[in-house]
Amino acid sequence: MPFIRVSYLRHRYDEQRLNRVAESIMSALIEHFNVPKDDFFQVFHAHEPGEFYYSPNYLNVERTDGLLYIQITLKSGRTVEQKKRFYATLAELLARNAGIRKEDVFVVLVGTEYEDWTFGNGIAQMLEITQGKERAVHVASVDSE
Amino acid sequence: MPFIRVSYLRHRYDEQRLNRVAESIMSALIEHFNVPKDDFFQVFHAHEPGEFYYSPNYLNVERTDGLLYIQITLKSGRTVEQKKRFYATLAELLARNAGIRKEDVFVVLVGTEYEDWTFGNGIAQMLEITQGKERAVHVASVDSE
Amino acid sequence: MPFIRVSYLRHRYDEQRLNRVAESIMSALIEHFNVPKDDFFQVFHAHEPGEFYYSPNYLNVERTDGLLYIQITLKSGRTVEQKKRFYATLAELLARNAGIRKEDVFVVLVGTEYEDWTFGNGIAQMLEITQGKERAVHVASVDSE
Repeated sequence: MPFIRVSYLRHRYDEQRLNRVAESIMSALIEHFNVPKDDFFQVFHAHEPGEFYYSPNYLNVERTDGLLYIQITLKSGRTVEQKKRFYATLAELLARNAGIRKEDVFVVLVGTEYEDWTFGNGIAQMLEITQGKERAVHVASVDSE
Repeated sequence: MPFIRVSYLRHRYDEQRLNRVAESIMSALIEHFNVPKDDFFQVFHAHEPGEFYYSPNYLNVERTDGLLYIQITLKSGRTVEQKKRFYATLAELLARNAGIRKEDVFVVLVGTEYEDWTFGNGIAQMLEITQGKERAVHVASVDSE
Repeated sequence: MPFIRVSYLRHRYDEQRLNRVAESIMSALIEHFNVPKDDFFQVFHAHEPGEFYYSPNYLNVERTDGLLYIQITLKSGRTVEQKKRFYATLAELLARNAGIRKEDVFVVLVGTEYEDWTFGNGIAQMLEITQGKERAVHVASVDSE
């Protein structure tokens, strides 16, 4: 369910590297947020130098022009521990697979609910899936009485 | 009060078609979320192929390069039923007016409060309007005692 | 902690003016939201005319093509009064420093929590800082007993 927007400086990334970034983000989502493998929805925004600002050392993190702003809109409810592990893994994977400095991995998460999403066809799929599960659980508990 | 960001693949949409998309979104907002006709604030982001990722079949929805990522920041509090009807109407209108496959209509809503908006002039207009209404209701109820 | 996205019409702003916009936003954040001076994270999105829609007079505010859509993702919890003062100061600073009409300053705030951010290195820095403060306060209150 996550939808990801990544902002980057145009001259610092080519298509192949963006691809590795996308795959690294996806891997970290799968590992820590239980995101299905094919729940893959990401866009990248290229910026010119005059459109891209960052502090080079806020909180004693040394950032460079390779900085990635990764904004992830997702279902609320992930725990603090899950989020911490997600950040650590994401920085690790981006460093290993896309040659990005860990200092240049900036992330912000924005929470939403199941009813806030449609994945196509004008249907709120997550609502149907979760209600189906609740019904299934209810039926099962009734069955077991 | 909604503010809309739409991400699309550059080579798939021209200005005329974007225009129809914008109008279709507006119509669905008016119909289901009681948005005033002139509360019209939308931006579109063109992406190159290497900047635009999506699953071609997650949740059994067959998506194509015509996919639209429609992110809507709005006042929280719309009901689940309103949201479901909004998604259905939006897909219908985009199909009919802009020739978009319903499978290619991806939406995510992000909730906010009245105090989170200024529509210009440095004033939180929605706060003033809603406080005015509350005062009016209070006065009316006092009047009727 | 704020992360800012500003959408603007490409032909209306050059790099120097964007720079003044960025600095004005930062100044207003520092003044009203207690944002540290070097907590500076902003990106700007240029749009073509067919990608940029707005109402020219919703709520009796006369907008022009100089309009700025300023979306600020930040820690929730700022008061209504703080937000109102922020909007007023921001419009004032943008008018004075970047020659922007106050009518053309559109802002929407999106709230998040401390655990929703990493500023690099795969660490949720705000969590560590605030937990450190809580520990410090706890120790202090124990000390003073």
